[in-house]
Amino acid sequence: MRIAVIGGLAAGPAAAAEAKRQAPDATVVLFEEGPHISVGTCEIPYLIGGRLEPGTDLVVLTPDEIRRTRGVDARVRHRVTALDPGRGRLTVEALHFGSTTEEPFDRFILATGARARRLGVDGEDAAGVFTVRNLVDTHAILRWLDTEPVRHVVVVGGGYIGLEMAEAMRERGLRATILDPNGRVLGNTVACEASDLMNEAVAAAGVAVRAERVTAILADDDGRVRAVRTDRGELVGCQMVVVSVGVEPRVELAQAAGIRLGDRGGVAVDDQMRTSARRVWACGDVVEIPRAPDGRRVLWPLATTARRTARVAARNATGTADRFRPFAGAVGVRAFGVEVGSVGLSLAQAEDAGLDAVATDVRHLSRTAAFPEASPIDVRLVTERGTGRLLGGQLVGAEGAALRSDVLVPLVARGATVRELAEDLDLLYNPPLAPAVDPLKVAASRAMRD
Amino acid sequence: MRIAVIGGLAAGPAAAAEAKRQAPDATVVLFEEGPHISVGTCEIPYLIGGRLEPGTDLVVLTPDEIRRTRGVDARVRHRVTALDPGRGRLTVEALHFGSTTEEPFDRFILATGARARRLGVDGEDAAGVFTVRNLVDTHAILRWLDTEPVRHVVVVGGGYIGLEMAEAMRERGLRATILDPNGRVLGNTVACEASDLMNEAVAAAGVAVRAERVTAILADDDGRVRAVRTDRGELVGCQMVVVSVGVEPRVELAQAAGIRLGDRGGVAVDDQMRTSARRVWACGDVVEIPRAPDGRRVLWPLATTARRTARVAARNATGTADRFRPFAGAVGVRAFGVEVGSVGLSLAQAEDAGLDAVATDVRHLSRTAAFPEASPIDVRLVTERGTGRLLGGQLVGAEGAALRSDVLVPLVARGATVRELAEDLDLLYNPPLAPAVDPLKVAASRAMRD
Repeated sequence: MRIAVIGGLAAGPAAAAEAKRQAPDATVVLFEEGPHISVGTCEIPYLIGGRLEPGTDLVVLTPDEIRRTRGVDARVRHRVTALDPGRGRLTVEALHFGSTTEEPFDRFILATGARARRLGVDGEDAAGVFTVRNLVDTHAILRWLDTEPVRHVVVVGGGYIGLEMAEAMRERGLRATILDPNGRVLGNTVACEASDLMNEAVAAAGVAVRAERVTAILADDDGRVRAVRTDRGELVGCQMVVVSVGVEPRVELAQAAGIRLGDRGGVAVDDQMRTSARRVWACGDVVEIPRAPDGRRVLWPLATTARRTARVAARNATGTADRFRPFAGAVGVRAFGVEVGSVGLSLAQAEDAGLDAVATDVRHLSRTAAFPEASPIDVRLVTERGTGRLLGGQLVGAEGAALRSDVLVPLVARGATVRELAEDLDLLYNPPLAPAVDPLKVAASRAMRD
Repeated sequence: MRIAVIGGLAAGPAAAAEAKRQAPDATVVLFEEGPHISVGTCEIPYLIGGRLEPGTDLVVLTPDEIRRTRGVDARVRHRVTALDPGRGRLTVEALHFGSTTEEPFDRFILATGARARRLGVDGEDAAGVFTVRNLVDTHAILRWLDTEPVRHVVVVGGGYIGLEMAEAMRERGLRATILDPNGRVLGNTVACEASDLMNEAVAAAGVAVRAERVTAILADDDGRVRAVRTDRGELVGCQMVVVSVGVEPRVELAQAAGIRLGDRGGVAVDDQMRTSARRVWACGDVVEIPRAPDGRRVLWPLATTARRTARVAARNATGTADRFRPFAGAVGVRAFGVEVGSVGLSLAQAEDAGLDAVATDVRHLSRTAAFPEASPIDVRLVTERGTGRLLGGQLVGAEGAALRSDVLVPLVARGATVRELAEDLDLLYNPPLAPAVDPLKVAASRAMRD
């Protein structure tokens, strides 16, 4: 059996390794267009900000290592230009040589991932305008910072990557401004609707957050970025722009192969990660997957979940039945000394899903109040009116907010009620670690009455 | 309706407040032998060690406050000397006045708690020998430290309170030695069988842990402690001894009233916290309660669980049906820069319960390895052979070990399998907060193969 895995960032290598584990006699070939596979992309902002040692290698597995330790034939700088599931053929361009060949396979696993979304404005190709998606971006950003007289960086988008990049720029001693239509950070993806703690920390660190959209990027005669123009007609001078406005699935190959897409524009798969085409499974950022509270299929471009879809795809592709269970969606970020942890749905997402949802907001403490180190934790729990089912939760605070959110993962995934959290679960209490009643339990008790 | 609650430390005030909430027209009287109710006893070591401001008030609610805010008639320095459930009478001695009265009640809630266990050796009553259970002990310890030339403190028992007290003594600049038959700290209650991280931290802090038992305590002519003698015949000179060898339930009142005790010597109750006597419920450290993995009824003297039993007792006593769900038992401690979190059963406890258990030990990291701040976390998961049911887990490490253990609480409480933890739950991943695969998931994946 010959298995082709297309895409080498996170899901691809995981799927290839799992396929080889399940079917040791199979030939598993991993194709990646870029120069690296298996990259720890989440670490990029910390490498740029100097929190990691300069030169820290973010490659988790090299092509040689995955060949030796996992038995996967990894081919970097190989672009798959066509997939023909009916005939069982891939057309592959070897970018080193410029040669194109057609290869036969029995099974295909699509892991083409997502690309950084662009702004679509004039001047976006100016030198000094970057997205943050891979090691090629990273090295270009580091080179720009090392060689250009950068004083002020405009970060477009206040999601978690924008936030981390703004922090990285401050850690390098640069001015940073975030442009986000919400006028606040983390307004969408990692919702912390009910807390101002993160936004206060951003402001205290000297990072302005402006409720403006970019309408154009302006460059000097040498093509170097010099300013962005916003929808308020303002010009914001800068020597670098980081565009972090989300990602979009790379579906071109699937589309050309006649594979069905879902409502959100990702590849549609069933619970076994099977696409509409025979012999083709898909996984990672390119697929739409069901989320826990309501089963809605969404794009969820996160490494943890990507690896899980990869495992399910690889098992089913090699004949071992496995099923993807809806995800509860833990997201966390730490920046400017404040942590955010978010699981499941925000109030806005729950309402958008047509659920009769109610939000309960509580401010409690990270430890017993008697401790000088105790700091506030803001908790929002989103529950279904009537049933008390836990739909999601968000925690924001300087100490222990993010790890606490993990407790919600099994609860939201299973459709547990706030009553269970409030009344049945004895979470840890020890003065330097947690207060007598954990912030999560305080919020759950309040939610029972809301 | 008149309801008597006997005992005012943690469960008693919680039960009294809940009873009044459920039955606003009832008269609820809380009797406490000592001078305080509702004391944050877990904070005592930190007050003694100086981590809290001197004079920090550990009283959560005064008798006056519980009267005003909860409508509970709290009577401190009132000792209940007899309970007659049949006639609905309490005999109460008012310690201020020395007067004894008999009072009629319709319902009784026993919350007499536990007392510190004694060593039962000669010399235990010497001045400078303390247990750590309440504010009276605390003030006596602080007075001794302030007025006596203490240089070396012997802590008898290396459980979590012994460990916290040893740390408190080090923070005061004193020498401390722990005597524990296990020859290591946390050998029993908060099991961290598989990790040496805490013991290494204790040793690095200059605290010797000796595998010896105390056979006698020696005092000078003024009755002040000067040494302990051990079962190896050694004399360990010291100017203070802290005895922390566990607690035992205070069942004398229940026994005299003819109430049935359980196998472990605590008051036997059903899932509604009803005792064998009509009109009498019980809660807190005095009762035996079912633990989650195996349903065995045990003594579990922890504040979080005590409050939960109190709520169930008070609801049923006032006519609102409620049921106590078996507890998963989270315990945490932080000392000498290392955290321990433990949930459910240790391997020894599981084997003792007749379960076919297997332990899986993993060392992973608190964050992505690229971060200089990443530190090891040792995880032990205890699972049932064959079913893969999660029976318990322990985490030890410098960063995030304790809060991570909370994730196990809903899993152990519900009898989830390690497969669910390994394959279905997407725990948080963000470089400064957690590595790509959380230590808990690394351990669960390994456990699936063990």
